[in-house]
Amino acid sequence: MGKNKNQIGITVKKNDDIVEWYSQVVLKSELADYSAVKGCAVIRPLGYSLWQGIMDYFNDRLKILGVKNAYFPLFIPESFFYREADHVEGFAPEVAWIERKSEGEERVAVRPTSETIMYDSYSKWIRSYRDLPLRINQWANIVRWEVKDVKIFLRSREFLWQEGHCVYETEEECDHEAELMIKEYKRLSEDLLAIPVVIGKKSEKEKFPGAKYTYTIEAFMPDGKALQSGTSHNLGTGFAKAFDIKFKGRDEKDHYPWQSSWGFSTRLLGALIMTHGDDKGLVLPPKISPTKVVIVPIINKKYPEQNKKVLERSQEIKKSLELAGLSVELDDREEYSPGFKFSHWELKGVPLRMEFGPRDLENNSAILVKRNNNEKITVSLDELVEKVKNLLDMIQNELLEHARQEVDSRTVNPQTYDEFVKATTQDGCLAIINHCGDALCEDEIKAETGGVTSRCRPMGDDTPSKGAVCLKCGKPAKYKIIFSRNY
Amino acid sequence: MGKNKNQIGITVKKNDDIVEWYSQVVLKSELADYSAVKGCAVIRPLGYSLWQGIMDYFNDRLKILGVKNAYFPLFIPESFFYREADHVEGFAPEVAWIERKSEGEERVAVRPTSETIMYDSYSKWIRSYRDLPLRINQWANIVRWEVKDVKIFLRSREFLWQEGHCVYETEEECDHEAELMIKEYKRLSEDLLAIPVVIGKKSEKEKFPGAKYTYTIEAFMPDGKALQSGTSHNLGTGFAKAFDIKFKGRDEKDHYPWQSSWGFSTRLLGALIMTHGDDKGLVLPPKISPTKVVIVPIINKKYPEQNKKVLERSQEIKKSLELAGLSVELDDREEYSPGFKFSHWELKGVPLRMEFGPRDLENNSAILVKRNNNEKITVSLDELVEKVKNLLDMIQNELLEHARQEVDSRTVNPQTYDEFVKATTQDGCLAIINHCGDALCEDEIKAETGGVTSRCRPMGDDTPSKGAVCLKCGKPAKYKIIFSRNY
Repeated sequence: MGKNKNQIGITVKKNDDIVEWYSQVVLKSELADYSAVKGCAVIRPLGYSLWQGIMDYFNDRLKILGVKNAYFPLFIPESFFYREADHVEGFAPEVAWIERKSEGEERVAVRPTSETIMYDSYSKWIRSYRDLPLRINQWANIVRWEVKDVKIFLRSREFLWQEGHCVYETEEECDHEAELMIKEYKRLSEDLLAIPVVIGKKSEKEKFPGAKYTYTIEAFMPDGKALQSGTSHNLGTGFAKAFDIKFKGRDEKDHYPWQSSWGFSTRLLGALIMTHGDDKGLVLPPKISPTKVVIVPIINKKYPEQNKKVLERSQEIKKSLELAGLSVELDDREEYSPGFKFSHWELKGVPLRMEFGPRDLENNSAILVKRNNNEKITVSLDELVEKVKNLLDMIQNELLEHARQEVDSRTVNPQTYDEFVKATTQDGCLAIINHCGDALCEDEIKAETGGVTSRCRPMGDDTPSKGAVCLKCGKPAKYKIIFSRNY
Repeated sequence: MGKNKNQIGITVKKNDDIVEWYSQVVLKSELADYSAVKGCAVIRPLGYSLWQGIMDYFNDRLKILGVKNAYFPLFIPESFFYREADHVEGFAPEVAWIERKSEGEERVAVRPTSETIMYDSYSKWIRSYRDLPLRINQWANIVRWEVKDVKIFLRSREFLWQEGHCVYETEEECDHEAELMIKEYKRLSEDLLAIPVVIGKKSEKEKFPGAKYTYTIEAFMPDGKALQSGTSHNLGTGFAKAFDIKFKGRDEKDHYPWQSSWGFSTRLLGALIMTHGDDKGLVLPPKISPTKVVIVPIINKKYPEQNKKVLERSQEIKKSLELAGLSVELDDREEYSPGFKFSHWELKGVPLRMEFGPRDLENNSAILVKRNNNEKITVSLDELVEKVKNLLDMIQNELLEHARQEVDSRTVNPQTYDEFVKATTQDGCLAIINHCGDALCEDEIKAETGGVTSRCRPMGDDTPSKGAVCLKCGKPAKYKIIFSRNY
């Protein structure tokens, strides 16, 4: 047994080497795999079921928000990139181009993002203020070629995402919905995935190429690095001008509309793994886990008659949980021991394990084990469904709470630049400091720390006290900004 | 009014010019649009909601069938194409390649289908008979570059599809599930989309490159052309050998497994539009229509007090239908007349229209109008929900029945080759004939008729009577085969 366990289990501790730990969890829990194509990964069924869960959750929200799904071409004509100057500069180095088959056809790229191809259509569809607001989302694959060393879910040449692209009559509407969407992202991240995030605005240096401003949700990983998990941009009217999107207003005159765009990607799965996983493998929050409960019958080859009864009752229990809307696995494989099965399902992150043996059968009870903290609870089968539901809720809450505490314990307010450097580099912390807001000052910090960058100005709490100065350069402070290393 | 109607309505009759009619329906009902990228289309929200409906329906079936969704890279290494000889020959001309950025990196293509990239992973994942059957599906975008003139949903450089790829211990299992999946496709097509299809095997000439045999579902359009709407292949063990997929069998020896693959695409939407649409535009079967009922309040500007009451009651009716699980649009726009709205929603194919005016308010009734045949039914509001549900069921059935009759009326059994040629070319029919099964004979038919091809050998009814000869060449007949022109 011991031998087998070592082969399938994680062989490094999360705290000792989070990079190796992450890679082992992804591969051994069969979330994803490397592929034969440089820079690209395969999302295996367990990983895809998590993405499907995110899609389903978010599609329900989009319906309520009046956003409709559509699908635009994978290819972008070269000339489109040049229409918006900041945009082309931001994306040109990352673009994969298709080999031209015949002269005369314009060169096309594989989409690194879809603003340009979508807004070309928008310019045909929008005529009057009656056509606004226009709210469209697309689920799509995206390619950014510069990536060479794939870190599954975190960095790869191809990834999956959603991108919402909305058009409004007024700046106020656009501001309002850019903020609304980043709050939706926070909701998805915290409510569904139990990942606490900070909402804030990006600095001028870090905002989206072509945007007026960018909101972000930043998740903070156990190693103190930030993971930008979703962004929402007010694009101003720059793209409308570049793509000639105009509408006849209520005043019968032509106007350029305001635009927003917002997106999150399969990176969220990277945040999910790193936030909750432990030395035994994946830990999935119940709301996103495709399997809520795994039943492991405790059988003993010496007593076949007894085994039969335990297995039959296990089947009945599975059915009763399924009737209550819970997805259940019954691991009745005969060739593996209970201990092996415990490790197997712990690796795969199933939130609740039920152990059920002859003694439980006799006592009309079962043992439930919580994946997140290994707590064991004996419950009567008469109240099993209710207990299981309560425990799943409890696990969901505990995971969020635990992650919050983890982030809090790594959040500091350094009073000197030296403290700041030590905290963000050696100690793996994120630091909230007063800052001048200058891109050059950010550059200096990044260079001196080997990669500490501004993450965001936390929403509702980004104003320095009167007379405060930049912790780095001593000029008057403009904002409170969170700095940390990042993925 | 008349003027407006002409601008938004379809200006050509389906029977007069189905090509122009199709294009107008697609564009004017806002299902899809052309894009700035040669050969590529934009699927607009109405079109995408139909594809989403198909995905949701099929995902539910896949769950029952034990097939899991996953996602594989968009890119295929060049060397992979050369591993299976028939496969490379079949796809090479259609492939789009990525410009190489640096020497030493292998050239990669944008996937024209995913057998090769998936089977490379399978060779790593499959070790033992315990790993089988392996059943994986992916929803993906696909690129085939040879297309120049886009016919939206029917022919474009990029399209959306699902591709299932399964691996089995035995030939029997593989045969069984290849047939099971084509029957699933028939179910989806007939039950959800109300499109009658014929199941059959493709001839040697028309089968999938690299397959042992190919099942197809063929839908027959009102112009007599067939539309291949889904295929399911038994791939034999050829790909397993090419990609070195082996498993340790129950006999402890190494074996090559059997493989199947199966797919349908957004072409189904083309079949849907052509099968049910009419001179007023789109006609959507209730099960796939994102909106089941549109309520058009009949208001008269002269009587604002009365209008208020009609609108309030309309809101209540909408609510009661929604509570019963039906999606409803209430068209309360003030700037358009009821007649304009009727045309608008007819164009968009909503299955049931409800007209509700002051007299209906008084009588506690409403008028329901069936999109498929313009039948009007007055119903009491007390039994509205039940009546609406019944009518939606009725429309779904009538559409399938009507389409069946249409196909039957165009199906012939010609007794001479001249009759065959006339039927399949001038008369827009499909013909079931005795055939020798030779690819060369098929080629001759195609050449002499300007494009009539073998569609399939109808399942359960493909054996010629004893002594029958090929209608074309006079050699002994091997099969009954359906021939027609095709999309």
